Amino acid sequence: MAIEERVRELAGEVEAADAAAAEKARARHLELTKPPGSLGRLEEAGVRLSGISGACPPPVPERPAVVICAGDHGVLARGVSPWPQEVTALMVRNFCEEGAAANALARTAGARVSVLDVGVAGELPGHPRLRGAKVRSGTDDLSARPAMTREEASRAVMAGAGIAEELVESGEVDLLVTGDMGIGNTTPAACLISAFTGRPPSEVTGRGTGIDDETYELKVRVIEEALRLHEPDPEDPLGVLAAVGGLEHAALAGLVLMGAACRVPVVLDGVSSGAAALVARALAPDAPDYAFAGHLSAEPGAAAALEELGLEPLLDLRMRLGEGTGALLAVPVLQSAARVLGEMATFEDVGIG
Amino acid sequence: MAIEERVRELAGEVEAADAAAAEKARARHLELTKPPGSLGRLEEAGVRLSGISGACPPPVPERPAVVICAGDHGVLARGVSPWPQEVTALMVRNFCEEGAAANALARTAGARVSVLDVGVAGELPGHPRLRGAKVRSGTDDLSARPAMTREEASRAVMAGAGIAEELVESGEVDLLVTGDMGIGNTTPAACLISAFTGRPPSEVTGRGTGIDDETYELKVRVIEEALRLHEPDPEDPLGVLAAVGGLEHAALAGLVLMGAACRVPVVLDGVSSGAAALVARALAPDAPDYAFAGHLSAEPGAAAALEELGLEPLLDLRMRLGEGTGALLAVPVLQSAARVLGEMATFEDVGIG
Repeated sequence: MAIEERVRELAGEVEAADAAAAEKARARHLELTKPPGSLGRLEEAGVRLSGISGACPPPVPERPAVVICAGDHGVLARGVSPWPQEVTALMVRNFCEEGAAANALARTAGARVSVLDVGVAGELPGHPRLRGAKVRSGTDDLSARPAMTREEASRAVMAGAGIAEELVESGEVDLLVTGDMGIGNTTPAACLISAFTGRPPSEVTGRGTGIDDETYELKVRVIEEALRLHEPDPEDPLGVLAAVGGLEHAALAGLVLMGAACRVPVVLDGVSSGAAALVARALAPDAPDYAFAGHLSAEPGAAAALEELGLEPLLDLRMRLGEGTGALLAVPVLQSAARVLGEMATFEDVGIG
Repeated sequence: MAIEERVRELAGEVEAADAAAAEKARARHLELTKPPGSLGRLEEAGVRLSGISGACPPPVPERPAVVICAGDHGVLARGVSPWPQEVTALMVRNFCEEGAAANALARTAGARVSVLDVGVAGELPGHPRLRGAKVRSGTDDLSARPAMTREEASRAVMAGAGIAEELVESGEVDLLVTGDMGIGNTTPAACLISAFTGRPPSEVTGRGTGIDDETYELKVRVIEEALRLHEPDPEDPLGVLAAVGGLEHAALAGLVLMGAACRVPVVLDGVSSGAAALVARALAPDAPDYAFAGHLSAEPGAAAALEELGLEPLLDLRMRLGEGTGALLAVPVLQSAARVLGEMATFEDVGIG
């Protein structure tokens, strides 16, 4: 139980964002040289960044890092994805060697890329960009038995929290971007989203990397079976994770919690990140105060998760890759939102009004 | 007629984008380490960048410049905006002194900021960031007489083209962002959009920087009057510009044309840029091949213009400021789209499939 206790301790450190700083930002927006409200959602984002940092203007988050949490999934044996399990490990190597989409997009965002192996099947060769924190070699088949134990889920949460803490405490990172890699991981993501939103699997299940109608129907059926088998209780988030989650979802929940505890903005990517954020919120109700929805993934579960979290996505480019790609594209939007509050002249400065 | 001839000559230099290079990019996307289509609109953007540059992968546009074209409007005397005309000149100074929203957002995008005075009322003090190319001190009241002469419209088009050419030929700029400043300029923008799309003024008129119901109704009425008075002929784009346009819209049309002639991507901002792009398309039907819709402005005319141009906006942050702000936010999306094609590993590279 010690490790579960650590998760609860971390969750207990999450406090609501600073409403007074957010209010200052709202007032500041009215003084800047632009018609009130004319920067739309950029203004909202600036207000939220002020609440997160407790300062108006908020610091410009210029040192982003994407953490790609990777794991494998026993449920893949049910045939829910056309991709073989080995692809997870191959993609981890691709991230390390900077050949993946996340690496290309991280370059534009000026983000460092870290990969956290929290549950990839088999051994991975070491690499400076790869953090080894394997809790187990992939989960069990969640449609037949719990994906993992509560202790394993808790350890994965703390692994994600650990890397987030280290990055933030190094002083070299001031914004966290969630990324995920795991062949088959939209199945546990849909289970988690269904469990926490109460929506039926058919509403929150998507085609992941691209599956045909037959596989899609199978996938929905597998998710329905899993939920019937475990009857996950949303009041017990670690129990839900253990029953129907993935190790990378657990790690991402930890990353969201630690970002919130450290008062650092966390930009969520797609459906796996949304599922993880629901776990984080169930553990710490104020955690979403620190989260931004980077984009609206084309996976239907993503929209359901974000609606439940009360987060409106910043971008919608019909992406569905994961890896943090959609969230990385939103980083300049947040940087711009902070710059508006910190760098614009006021009407008084320029002699208008 | 010499100057009109120069506009036509420039328009004649615009050729369609390179379909073969675009096709290569489509094929390349299928080989990269991601499920086909999973990067959504980022893939489309990469295909278009390949067509524009005639190369796959396309160069990453790392040296953007926003050109803020500024002018004043005689129609302001009708009371279509609550802001006084002097604000145009004050905002030009604000751009020069780097205190405006466009400056803050340009910093995130790594974009240089140039201001083109093509028609601000009164004299402006010189500044290194300000290009003086004043055609006249604001337009006439377009609801009573032509806003300007055909020659003036043509000179303003060539002023915008001139600064675009100079920036591109300097080798320091490889992507152009359109920006506008002009108190009252959503009125001529709506006139232009109505003239080129055939939609009634009530459908394409918005509240600009924020006006009350009474002013809004007056604005629609003024636009209806102007269109009835001039009956602008969309087959004669310089005539439309002269009758119901603005000097900054003319300059922006020239910028769009020159970007297309130089095969450089042009990122359009909001309703004034959309109106200008319609003028450019009427002069050179292939000009939109080189344009990206940076965002969907909250002004209803913007959506109408983009639909007519066949351009889908990249972002929608409910912004309505102008100055190039919405387009600047889209620059990293285009940089990312180019990087995907140029920097990602293929499935073969990493041993998948």
